[in-house]
Amino acid sequence: MERELIRWLRDHLPPHRSLRLGLGDDAAVLNMAGVDECVITVDMLTDHVDFELAEVDPRRVGRKCLAANLSDLAAMAARPMAGVVALCLPRQGGLELAKGLFEGMIPLAEQYELAIAGGDTNSWDGPLAVSITLLGGVTERGPLRRGGAQPGDRIVVTGSLGGSILGRHLDFEPRVREAIALHARYELHAGMDISDGLSLDLARMLEESRCGAVIRADAVPVSDDARRLSQHPADGVTPLNHALSDGEDFELLLAVPPVAAQQMLAEQSVDVPLTDIGEFVSDAGLWIAEADGVRRPLEPRGWEHRLDNR
Amino acid sequence: MERELIRWLRDHLPPHRSLRLGLGDDAAVLNMAGVDECVITVDMLTDHVDFELAEVDPRRVGRKCLAANLSDLAAMAARPMAGVVALCLPRQGGLELAKGLFEGMIPLAEQYELAIAGGDTNSWDGPLAVSITLLGGVTERGPLRRGGAQPGDRIVVTGSLGGSILGRHLDFEPRVREAIALHARYELHAGMDISDGLSLDLARMLEESRCGAVIRADAVPVSDDARRLSQHPADGVTPLNHALSDGEDFELLLAVPPVAAQQMLAEQSVDVPLTDIGEFVSDAGLWIAEADGVRRPLEPRGWEHRLDNR
Repeated sequence: MERELIRWLRDHLPPHRSLRLGLGDDAAVLNMAGVDECVITVDMLTDHVDFELAEVDPRRVGRKCLAANLSDLAAMAARPMAGVVALCLPRQGGLELAKGLFEGMIPLAEQYELAIAGGDTNSWDGPLAVSITLLGGVTERGPLRRGGAQPGDRIVVTGSLGGSILGRHLDFEPRVREAIALHARYELHAGMDISDGLSLDLARMLEESRCGAVIRADAVPVSDDARRLSQHPADGVTPLNHALSDGEDFELLLAVPPVAAQQMLAEQSVDVPLTDIGEFVSDAGLWIAEADGVRRPLEPRGWEHRLDNR
Repeated sequence: MERELIRWLRDHLPPHRSLRLGLGDDAAVLNMAGVDECVITVDMLTDHVDFELAEVDPRRVGRKCLAANLSDLAAMAARPMAGVVALCLPRQGGLELAKGLFEGMIPLAEQYELAIAGGDTNSWDGPLAVSITLLGGVTERGPLRRGGAQPGDRIVVTGSLGGSILGRHLDFEPRVREAIALHARYELHAGMDISDGLSLDLARMLEESRCGAVIRADAVPVSDDARRLSQHPADGVTPLNHALSDGEDFELLLAVPPVAAQQMLAEQSVDVPLTDIGEFVSDAGLWIAEADGVRRPLEPRGWEHRLDNR
């Protein structure tokens, strides 16, 4: 990492009890005493794909990059511990850009008690790429996985869905506290974050859990953003379909046994609304049920990085 | 990560005792029982900067990317544990490229008992970027740091230096085993890997250690590659200067108390030659001493990612 940036970061990064050795050496050193299991996740976000740097303050970009990674810890109901940040910076203005990105990350890291342990910066002739790796501590309940949903479980989501492109995809709150609190208080069979679209992410949970699911159309918490987007003359997508297939909601998708779900819905013990949107079934497949009870197959749709095989 | 790549990786990644949960969930889960301290390092390598994808087999590129990161663990004398790989892939041929990169990484990971725990793949209109984060276990001696060199210590390096651009920068062996073995057997005051050039990396060690150093010109182990490069009519750089300032040697640079250094040099207990190239001194600065004993200041030179401040 460039010396001026290291100096700046040493002045701006808060100390953290887990950090035995921070910036300036070949690697950082973390205190892992008492940690039996940790989760590790990496996510790379890039200009023109995950954000438009020309249109957004670098601090919002930096915050989003870290928040998307924190959402992966939330998906596992893991407690944020430490992370490292690798940047590919455009040559021109790279140092100021790097500072701006970190200015966006640091308050969020503090909020979630995450140590920013180190990083790597490169300059090149390409667009900005931000790769963040986070470590999280597993709670007593163990990691929350995708693969445990069972027929009969309720499908529960946090918040409201769809239309994040109107701004929420930059400024969302990762559901770290909610995931840990719900995992501690209720029996959860499976969980993940909704990063690529409800129907697509639910299909992934079904694949890992080897079961199917029926979503109740009238139960899906459609966001105001989804409605607003749908009203645009050129949009042509219903609010419900936005909620089913738009990416970057970063809400939680949970498989909850019926009794626990009933209690969870009644108690609403976290700061964000919890909604029962349907149930897991034994038949493989994904369906949507209208108010009249008629089911039709639902094609999983959402955001996918398609790799070209040519 | 794309489903086809996940499936391919599940077939090709070897199991590992540290890996409680691998690919396919929002994060991997690592067994950290008994690990009190771990080091974490990230390094992003990019096309046209660290390799030329058009000219090199993706397997060599993948191997280099992982080896450069392993060298950072060697720099801390840490035992490789687990890593995650994030790829930004050009859209065309991205899947085949990703497989090629992993085919280069997997044998090296096995050789160093490193678990490849997970990753992230993105496709975009930019060049290939590979970001790898590694975790390493600290040995009983603790992490080997840059900041402990003391006046009177000998400067010891592994291998021979300079001219890696002729091919060694792709196919080098990270000095993981050597670092751990030397750290266990001898008293080392400081250590790092030579990734950006001997004089530049030594200057960084001096800055962290708050002392100076004198390199003996005739003691520097100049590589055959450095000599070959120097013979090129258009080169205009002496073999010694290649050894002092070329990047990507990925050898070890150690600060060793005199008695331990004498023993280390006599025993040559690792598979790569160990050479005493000079000493640390109390005056801040870096000098080179010719055979006649005359010292002149040595400007630290090497590879730096310069961030533009405009």
